[in-house]
Amino acid sequence: MSDIPSRVQINEEGPREGFQFEKGPIPTARKIELIDRLSETGLNHIQVASFVNPNRVPGWADADQVVAGFKRRPGVEYTALWLNLKGFQRALASGRLDIKGSFSLTASETFLQRNQQRSMDDNIRAARETIEMYKQHNILLDRAGIMAAFGCNFEGEVPHQRVLDLIQLLLDISAEHGVRPRIFSLADTMAWATPKSVKELVGKVRNRYPDLTLSLHLHDTRGMGIANAYAGLEMGVAIYDATVAGLGGCPFAAHKGAAGNVCTEDLVFMLDETGIETGIDLDKLIEVAQLAEDIVGHPLPGSVKMGGSLKALRSKLH
Amino acid sequence: MSDIPSRVQINEEGPREGFQFEKGPIPTARKIELIDRLSETGLNHIQVASFVNPNRVPGWADADQVVAGFKRRPGVEYTALWLNLKGFQRALASGRLDIKGSFSLTASETFLQRNQQRSMDDNIRAARETIEMYKQHNILLDRAGIMAAFGCNFEGEVPHQRVLDLIQLLLDISAEHGVRPRIFSLADTMAWATPKSVKELVGKVRNRYPDLTLSLHLHDTRGMGIANAYAGLEMGVAIYDATVAGLGGCPFAAHKGAAGNVCTEDLVFMLDETGIETGIDLDKLIEVAQLAEDIVGHPLPGSVKMGGSLKALRSKLH
Repeated sequence: MSDIPSRVQINEEGPREGFQFEKGPIPTARKIELIDRLSETGLNHIQVASFVNPNRVPGWADADQVVAGFKRRPGVEYTALWLNLKGFQRALASGRLDIKGSFSLTASETFLQRNQQRSMDDNIRAARETIEMYKQHNILLDRAGIMAAFGCNFEGEVPHQRVLDLIQLLLDISAEHGVRPRIFSLADTMAWATPKSVKELVGKVRNRYPDLTLSLHLHDTRGMGIANAYAGLEMGVAIYDATVAGLGGCPFAAHKGAAGNVCTEDLVFMLDETGIETGIDLDKLIEVAQLAEDIVGHPLPGSVKMGGSLKALRSKLH
Repeated sequence: MSDIPSRVQINEEGPREGFQFEKGPIPTARKIELIDRLSETGLNHIQVASFVNPNRVPGWADADQVVAGFKRRPGVEYTALWLNLKGFQRALASGRLDIKGSFSLTASETFLQRNQQRSMDDNIRAARETIEMYKQHNILLDRAGIMAAFGCNFEGEVPHQRVLDLIQLLLDISAEHGVRPRIFSLADTMAWATPKSVKELVGKVRNRYPDLTLSLHLHDTRGMGIANAYAGLEMGVAIYDATVAGLGGCPFAAHKGAAGNVCTEDLVFMLDETGIETGIDLDKLIEVAQLAEDIVGHPLPGSVKMGGSLKALRSKLH
């Protein structure tokens, strides 16, 4: 328990994840509205758009317009997602983003083949190309990730040794290019993690690589998101991705409508009540979560936006 | 971590909590259908009805018919809730229930006054009368509970010492009548608990009363239910109340539609994946959770009924 960090960094991915996943067309102005409102909550890192093929992800056909339209607030980093050189160039060309290099490997080759029609060799080759692309543009290599680090719908449990081997491979590939990622992210892409497996895997990674800064990308598809985050906290992990109101979803769930990423305001509530600083104003964030539901036009999974914060209740006590 | 139990007892309260809370009239036959389907999942304890004033809780006006109609399955305990002698007599008269004595004290006097128009003295007097009523009917005193053990919307945090004092009072009152409750339940009535506070309070109770068998009644109103249950497990708690699909709700939430009790199938999923026995078939329970949604006619909060079990995925792996 003494490993619990005193401060946690939350990377808000709601706009990017949410508008990528939602079915209906959402007006560009409302996407911008969500980003601008998120900027006022104390969040210092917001992933605002996805520069991907509009034929494959129609929800982000307006990525350039969204990025052109939001208000940059000082102290907030605004990032975007891209999957190839073209997307990266669009993000660069916007001139309005904090460009951070990231690359990843996937712990399940079957998932790679099904999801991206790639082999593990393709995956490694793409990682090298990505690092080289950042080098050529003088972009810091911020983050290396392992997708499906906890399990895979097509392969089952991912052996911990494979994750350790992939971390070594990420370090080796980076070193070959003379760089070293600042953060290593373990992603529970298909929601196989439980508090127990988070503790076990993070424990093994920390034992083998005590100097690495770890982050967790958790999904709530099976309701374990907050419990897994708490397990991560107890193992000393201080960086989490999350989405406001639980925006987004999971294409790998058994039934449509399943939750995707862990919900930001539920996570902030848990952190607040655990005495961990985030710099985020929970009650403002709850308002933005309610706005997010209004924008997508249907209920979103987060709980605290319904239950309310305890800070609000405490302020009313005599 | 070594305190994690190898087996957990789950008390299913979905029918009682759910049909008490739902607005629309639900046909008696469908209430019975839910109970009968729950009986087939491996659950060994189901709270099937509430014998309360039908003017105050119209959803349970048909409690006698429901209790007369479900099929008793061997090995399953079927219990009910009552709040006074009249309700207790109705439950007894049914001749179809496992009558278990329980009584409780509330850790917040303000909540007592607001919710039940009672003082703490009234609360204690009622507890004595309840114990006496069980004695006269030769009913085992199964469970003593502390409501609002973690916090109160009207008083804020409940001091741990007050909970310890109330446990002593429960023990003293019982001893005066020559009985001793089998289980002590800590109820997070207004969803103030967090994993941290669960660990702290349960730790203090265990230190002070190492011989007591504890159970947790957790709410998910602020999304902490599963994380709190995991914290309870790590503190050795092996008995949990839960409701299938998260049936029920919370009248004390900031907004309508907030979750109530922790969801049974999400809890069973977490326990299964932690290697803890429950005797419950998760995939059957998921089907009953989907049935529960059909019966109430709107989405219910549980996650695993959407995300699906991992056991189902593993069985498809080659």
